[in-house]
Amino acid sequence: MRKKVLIIGGGFGGLATVRALKNADVDITLIDRTNHHLFQPLLYQVASASLSPGDVAVPIREVLRRQKNVRAVLGEATGIDTTARCVKVDDSIYDYDYLVVAVGAQTCYYGHAEWERYAPGLKTISDAIRIRENILTSFEKAEVTEDERERCKQMTFVVVGAGPVGVEMAGAIAELAKNCMCSDFRRINTSQARVILIEALDRILLAFDPRLSEKARQALEKMGVEVRLKSKITHIDDKGVWLGEELISTANVVWSAGISAPALTKSLGAETDRLGRVCVNPDLSIPGCPEAFVIGDASFSLSDGKPLPALAPVAIQQGKYVSTLIRTELPAGGRMPFVYHDKGFMAIIGRAKAVVQRGGFKLSGFWAWCAFLVVHVAVLVQFRNRYAVTAEWLWYYLGNRPGVRLVTGHQNPQDKGT
Amino acid sequence: MRKKVLIIGGGFGGLATVRALKNADVDITLIDRTNHHLFQPLLYQVASASLSPGDVAVPIREVLRRQKNVRAVLGEATGIDTTARCVKVDDSIYDYDYLVVAVGAQTCYYGHAEWERYAPGLKTISDAIRIRENILTSFEKAEVTEDERERCKQMTFVVVGAGPVGVEMAGAIAELAKNCMCSDFRRINTSQARVILIEALDRILLAFDPRLSEKARQALEKMGVEVRLKSKITHIDDKGVWLGEELISTANVVWSAGISAPALTKSLGAETDRLGRVCVNPDLSIPGCPEAFVIGDASFSLSDGKPLPALAPVAIQQGKYVSTLIRTELPAGGRMPFVYHDKGFMAIIGRAKAVVQRGGFKLSGFWAWCAFLVVHVAVLVQFRNRYAVTAEWLWYYLGNRPGVRLVTGHQNPQDKGT
Repeated sequence: MRKKVLIIGGGFGGLATVRALKNADVDITLIDRTNHHLFQPLLYQVASASLSPGDVAVPIREVLRRQKNVRAVLGEATGIDTTARCVKVDDSIYDYDYLVVAVGAQTCYYGHAEWERYAPGLKTISDAIRIRENILTSFEKAEVTEDERERCKQMTFVVVGAGPVGVEMAGAIAELAKNCMCSDFRRINTSQARVILIEALDRILLAFDPRLSEKARQALEKMGVEVRLKSKITHIDDKGVWLGEELISTANVVWSAGISAPALTKSLGAETDRLGRVCVNPDLSIPGCPEAFVIGDASFSLSDGKPLPALAPVAIQQGKYVSTLIRTELPAGGRMPFVYHDKGFMAIIGRAKAVVQRGGFKLSGFWAWCAFLVVHVAVLVQFRNRYAVTAEWLWYYLGNRPGVRLVTGHQNPQDKGT
Repeated sequence: MRKKVLIIGGGFGGLATVRALKNADVDITLIDRTNHHLFQPLLYQVASASLSPGDVAVPIREVLRRQKNVRAVLGEATGIDTTARCVKVDDSIYDYDYLVVAVGAQTCYYGHAEWERYAPGLKTISDAIRIRENILTSFEKAEVTEDERERCKQMTFVVVGAGPVGVEMAGAIAELAKNCMCSDFRRINTSQARVILIEALDRILLAFDPRLSEKARQALEKMGVEVRLKSKITHIDDKGVWLGEELISTANVVWSAGISAPALTKSLGAETDRLGRVCVNPDLSIPGCPEAFVIGDASFSLSDGKPLPALAPVAIQQGKYVSTLIRTELPAGGRMPFVYHDKGFMAIIGRAKAVVQRGGFKLSGFWAWCAFLVVHVAVLVQFRNRYAVTAEWLWYYLGNRPGVRLVTGHQNPQDKGT
């Protein structure tokens, strides 16, 4: 009887696990609520109209079609029973011998879920399209309004949280407004748009060396982004963003200030940290369940006393590690702990500007940007999108014209015309 | 005082008018409810997952950014007053000296608007994405269901109306199911999918020569499409499509059986035909209003005793013609009537299969398909998309793997993960 391996989530961790079990004598079921693997590091480029959704997402079935020991199921896992060893997916029950939970993270508003309405996060393609349409629609509204205050509000863009995604998003909006769209409008001057990056702590890109943080801040400010450190959001509503008594009037907020694990992890019955991440054993299994693992952003473990970062390389290495345990059927007692091999950090700031850090090695500016492109295209090579992404990027960087500036939502399908 | 030209609709007709007025001494306002010009002849390729929305749509501001005498407004025209010479757009009023109504067409259900829910048409990007997600989701449902009848229902695809769009759509679904996705699934055999093309009349592609219709029908049947002629839909609901007492059980219906003009045309106060199209004078103006024109799919006029077809070349030629009248400020009495120079018809059936007809010239098969590609890429040359579309097509036709098989809708943005 071949062992049944159930993997929840087709992100970097889940897919790495599946692929590392390619020739193993097991039956794998991969469950995902979307039909695509999302290349999240480039998702901000969909939100800023540089890339199409199809450039950063690839159908899971496409990735797995040659691997015959895996079956993909489009569905939502709603509960896990680690005693009966089964998972509820929509109306069906799937039992398992080994379970790998790789459900990733979702945007976290720290108890203010009502802010989501005004300040979308950036985790899914729907999120990215929503942000793209917000940005483009705001410029359109600014162009037609006769009200000067309304125009300022529509042309103010706030990004909350200055991690890599926040920095990338602020830089991308600034480039879009100040370089790319200047000749598109007749009444407004898009280069007068305000882009404000708000960070609660005292520097941006906290994971990086302070000198790189400083370089990134200078680069952003040179691009016209207002960087506000030690600023804490107290409220977000349809007027804008409140910092205590101060109101920044805006119709455009992007939230990149935190992530938490999805609610599903709670049904594992294991201890979680304050962000809902499951505290796992050194072998990434759940305490008391050597056959159930949590990997990637949804798991919490320490490396040299520090929590592992929520990065694709961590999830991928964990997926490969877990697949080895499953393949060799190692009992809990005989397992070496998971060790993360640090691949460093990267953040892109804008055209020909980035910061890169790996161990003691630090790089910023043009060559860091080249490194970013090479690494990301190299990873995309595994999928079909390399060709399209390279083409779009060439177009963008040579022509300075992000091509996918589409607003497609909210249309009444019965009433197209004007 | 420069004359004010107001153009409603940024489709082929509207944009042709704007561009032909490039160096004219007029102030142009172009109103569209979307921010993009849509290349409708290729929209079915978005619906069938071969192209991304960004490949067939280009921002209107991008097209017009070098033309300084035009201002684009994103908004919905809701009423036209030809006496006061003004148009209501959302909450604003725009007055004009010349008006060009180029609002195109919408899907027509001939009094059965309730069918729209089950049988989307194919006029907008939202429509195309909806159809794409329907098709892909159906295969996913068929893969997981244990119910054989449900599986058959999910794997039955019905296209209603065998004009060019219906033929293209039926061919594209057949290729997707029977060639491209076979290795993607483990339990279902996608090549067993049924694709049914339903036509009320006695042949498909009525606008073409009967011999080409017959060739196209044979080609479709060879690809596995069931072509049902002289079949009239009596009802559509969640069970499927009814032809009198007969039920075709299906969860996938695409409606391409008719178009009508948007309701806006009624506010012109002019005579319309039964599809709501405005009956225009030989100079395309509205009777009694020599300064107001209706062009493209929303207008009705005869050429050699036959109504002009709803095709891009008609709209483009009409736009150029009208722009000449405006530029020269010809009074109604001195205008030559509009004459359509027939550019012929084309329909693509599938990989390396198409039919082309122009005057007495007829072509089918591989060379017709090459002609289709050349003509369409040549038109796209005007926009940025040529590069991306050619790349996607090469990928598709060389690799047989339509790349944009994404289901992104209906996600709860707060609960991504699995």
